Amino acid sequence: MPDYHAPIEDMRFVLNELAGLQDIAQMPGFEEATPDVVDAILDEAGKLAGEVLAPLNHIGDRQGCVLENGVVRTPEGFKDAYRQYVQSGWNALPFEPEFGGQGLPWVVAQAIQEMWNSANMSFALCPLLNVGAVELLQVHGSPDQQATYLPKMVSGEWTGTMNLTEPQAGSDVGAAKTRAVKDGEAYRITGQKIYITYGEHDFTDNIVHMVLARTPDAPAGTKGISLFIVPKYLPKEDGSAGERNDLRCVSIEHKLGINASPTCTMAYGDNGGAVGFLVGEENRGIEYMFTMMNNARLSVGVQGVAIAERAYQQALAYARERVQGRPVDGSSKQAVPIIRHPDVRRTLMTMRARTEAARALAYVTAGALDHARRHPDEAVRRDHQINRLELLTPVVKAWCTDLGCEVASQGMQVHGGMGFIEETGAAQHYRDARITPIYEGTNGIQAMDLIGRKVLRRKAEPVRDLTADMKQTVERLRGANGEDLPALGAGLKEAVETVEKATDWLMEAEARDPAEPGAGAAPYLDMLGGVTAGWLMARGAEAAARRLAENGVGDQRFLRAKIVTARYYADNLLPHALASANSAMKGSKGVLALDEDAF
Amino acid sequence: MPDYHAPIEDMRFVLNELAGLQDIAQMPGFEEATPDVVDAILDEAGKLAGEVLAPLNHIGDRQGCVLENGVVRTPEGFKDAYRQYVQSGWNALPFEPEFGGQGLPWVVAQAIQEMWNSANMSFALCPLLNVGAVELLQVHGSPDQQATYLPKMVSGEWTGTMNLTEPQAGSDVGAAKTRAVKDGEAYRITGQKIYITYGEHDFTDNIVHMVLARTPDAPAGTKGISLFIVPKYLPKEDGSAGERNDLRCVSIEHKLGINASPTCTMAYGDNGGAVGFLVGEENRGIEYMFTMMNNARLSVGVQGVAIAERAYQQALAYARERVQGRPVDGSSKQAVPIIRHPDVRRTLMTMRARTEAARALAYVTAGALDHARRHPDEAVRRDHQINRLELLTPVVKAWCTDLGCEVASQGMQVHGGMGFIEETGAAQHYRDARITPIYEGTNGIQAMDLIGRKVLRRKAEPVRDLTADMKQTVERLRGANGEDLPALGAGLKEAVETVEKATDWLMEAEARDPAEPGAGAAPYLDMLGGVTAGWLMARGAEAAARRLAENGVGDQRFLRAKIVTARYYADNLLPHALASANSAMKGSKGVLALDEDAF
Repeated sequence: MPDYHAPIEDMRFVLNELAGLQDIAQMPGFEEATPDVVDAILDEAGKLAGEVLAPLNHIGDRQGCVLENGVVRTPEGFKDAYRQYVQSGWNALPFEPEFGGQGLPWVVAQAIQEMWNSANMSFALCPLLNVGAVELLQVHGSPDQQATYLPKMVSGEWTGTMNLTEPQAGSDVGAAKTRAVKDGEAYRITGQKIYITYGEHDFTDNIVHMVLARTPDAPAGTKGISLFIVPKYLPKEDGSAGERNDLRCVSIEHKLGINASPTCTMAYGDNGGAVGFLVGEENRGIEYMFTMMNNARLSVGVQGVAIAERAYQQALAYARERVQGRPVDGSSKQAVPIIRHPDVRRTLMTMRARTEAARALAYVTAGALDHARRHPDEAVRRDHQINRLELLTPVVKAWCTDLGCEVASQGMQVHGGMGFIEETGAAQHYRDARITPIYEGTNGIQAMDLIGRKVLRRKAEPVRDLTADMKQTVERLRGANGEDLPALGAGLKEAVETVEKATDWLMEAEARDPAEPGAGAAPYLDMLGGVTAGWLMARGAEAAARRLAENGVGDQRFLRAKIVTARYYADNLLPHALASANSAMKGSKGVLALDEDAF
Repeated sequence: MPDYHAPIEDMRFVLNELAGLQDIAQMPGFEEATPDVVDAILDEAGKLAGEVLAPLNHIGDRQGCVLENGVVRTPEGFKDAYRQYVQSGWNALPFEPEFGGQGLPWVVAQAIQEMWNSANMSFALCPLLNVGAVELLQVHGSPDQQATYLPKMVSGEWTGTMNLTEPQAGSDVGAAKTRAVKDGEAYRITGQKIYITYGEHDFTDNIVHMVLARTPDAPAGTKGISLFIVPKYLPKEDGSAGERNDLRCVSIEHKLGINASPTCTMAYGDNGGAVGFLVGEENRGIEYMFTMMNNARLSVGVQGVAIAERAYQQALAYARERVQGRPVDGSSKQAVPIIRHPDVRRTLMTMRARTEAARALAYVTAGALDHARRHPDEAVRRDHQINRLELLTPVVKAWCTDLGCEVASQGMQVHGGMGFIEETGAAQHYRDARITPIYEGTNGIQAMDLIGRKVLRRKAEPVRDLTADMKQTVERLRGANGEDLPALGAGLKEAVETVEKATDWLMEAEARDPAEPGAGAAPYLDMLGGVTAGWLMARGAEAAARRLAENGVGDQRFLRAKIVTARYYADNLLPHALASANSAMKGSKGVLALDEDAF
């Protein structure tokens, strides 16, 4: 299998030039995140990712997990890798220091999550789900619950899971039927949950399930869902894992990808009821879930970036090494590496530009999360919360994951016939990536969230705030020297105007017919993702040009490549974002024009 | 597994209204292909596909093939299905009557190939490759060779394979090293071939390999390749399979998809040399290969249509059945089937419009093949050969297969979490489809073929001939009554102008820099495919409107749906074809702007 090398120079560029890491490092609680510390952390994480996790990726895919007598055996090497990961303190990175966390900014944590996911997405899913559980308890757990669970879940000694889905309750979480009946201080939980990532595994002594369930007299729908802690082993007084709880993994799924991560069907209460502890108040479970949703959705978006990066690295290595065909320009009588063929080069440039664009979009949104949580000024916090974090989270989740699938597919294509052979490894990325547009809210759900809660309900103010920022960039670029920056400015100007037109259309469509905005939601999201990422690429080019002009600040070749790639994005990929806007505006009426029974 | 129902009404509509079946049926040799006969054939093929082949699709994927001691065992039921397929005479359908074929038009054969491939792509690959071998022998085989091999390969008693690829000779077939040394009347063949579809199997008593090899003093490159018949068993005087030849399958690949079709590494001559019989003359093997290339590439394009159709049917069935979430327009307090949600509806409409568009493009090109071969007027034959068949074959191959992958991916998405579970079957289509942009010339190779041989070398005359036809449609549509046809005309007008602009750009780019057209080849192809298919959709709408006006000719609902779907395509999908044109024209310079070592 080809190696994975964490793209640290790219990451640092985005963190510093686009995502505002310097500003974030000034905020209360982030004083530790100096440039030196962040550099050292990125380097060390890159080593673990490249040397320990990446070599297990293909083995994990081949071996998958095995369920025997309720026990899940993860693939060879995974348990030991998890031990190393925990011992080096990686699990604690982004969490609150009061529970043993290192309190680093989320934007740094997301960069490191990208590494874990590039190296080994199946492995990375275990910590990713644990983050959600920790976030829930950090905010909504009682002091006792926090003291009992958080130190172990922060360190990684125990892992947390999220139990939402049931066969009849997928996108509609409110349709959950799992029952919770009060029994003294605790509750008895009975029911079945499906698609539980790392619901059972052999990494740790205990697993802490966060379970959505319904008390007997709860209101129907989402307003009758409560949240419970249901540990696999009930903690003893001394904090260690004690008596086995009444829950078990009854099956694991045979999936298209992420084979090394066990996707479990969990049965609760087959023998009288699993013991569960209510988090917060009854019937507020969905509300609590939303507190961790932004972060979890961001993380899944980062998985899209991660798979794109891995697929790009592998395709690039192959394109340099595979010798086939003579060059069209007659520059050689001999066959050359396929990277010299213009069509292959286009594929690689597209993969590269897409990956960089998605990374910029994801990290900038993660930076908004840090601003929204930690900026000393409440108005700034609110601005970042509403106009950036909440607006862009569904965009990051959907746009970056669709992109991850496309880039993984392009990576296969660069390999030709070899790409279709499983031993090559390119096909694994294609299979693994495909879950990301589905889980943590399908990309269709993201699009509905974007247009409904984030645009229409707020009368489009967050989008207008975003386009106002873009227009400032346009002005600067149009007045810049040289050919590239003004060209980027001209392309961006058209793009911003298109976002404004499409947003006006959205408001008018809603007034006309409540179903019409939903019919245009997906292309609207695609447009907003494509334009916002294009804006960030242009800002990256601007920063690179500035540093080049300052002569000697950074690697010249690296900085020039940033400008070339931004220009490639603007000329080759941005047109499709604008086509999506056209599709939303011209085509949404046609979505519902065919009667249901005429299909 | 959900059923497959051959979309016979759709197929008939395209055959009759767009692909010119009535005209083709008038040509010499096709007198049998009356509407009644074609209808009966489509019905019967639909039954075999739906009742016999489709139920084996998932079993075949799960079981795969097994190689033991050089013998390949196909999955349960496949051998028997092949027997039924041969006994009913399906294999002989498109071949020349003088060798036992039924001599039906290719356009009908491609419709039926669509059925086999929708039902079971792994199965269908065996006959598909055999077609190539038969076509080669029909045109280039000696009378003796024809008499020995063709009757059995036409009936399906024996199967044929294509042996082109070697590890160092993929897209560059001319780099083949397999040796052929003259030995009396025959040759001794030594070498290894990879990716040989159905290179070994248990369907038949004998397998006839068509092998590219190089004689000792042959010129380097493509001009030194000869073509040989290398049968697994050497035919005896009485025509039956005799002595075992010196060739064997040494391994089968572990692939992403099409698991039921054995992809073999074939070793020739491990014990002194396999006996091979030269086809035609030495060093003309590549030239001969081209005689069957158009048809084989068309067939792979049809596989894209086929997978799209199957994925659409499965997603539609699921969307009708899966109940989840209340409707946005408040029309129900209860959860409804997800087909009622606008975003899901958009996905289904996109799948539907894409599938119909791809079918139209593929069948029309197959119709051009029949015209090019059988039309009594030589000028008409030449016109169809050059301006339609040769121009559009790479477009069908690449555009329809990319589309097949995208539609299969959308089909998974409609299933949500279920889509990622292998038992559902949606993921199999996604995996199976992914080979089609790779084999029979990667889609990058198709794009280079299009711009190089089909556009630039012919000074763009075939494209101008095509756009001239499109403009006639534009004129008719713009003068039509109602809202839809004129709107289609306006959309098509812009699209045709874009094709003309992009073609001018291509000519200028070549004059400027020989590498630049190649850098824009892929988006140019995407544009030409998208616009040509959009033109055919608009012509379909025109035909439907005419039949609706004639009152009572055909199913009203079906005909109205054709207009709605054409409009959907024009408003939602055509913008992306135009964006691809922009990407080619604006962005191709940027493809090579980054130095190779700056990647």
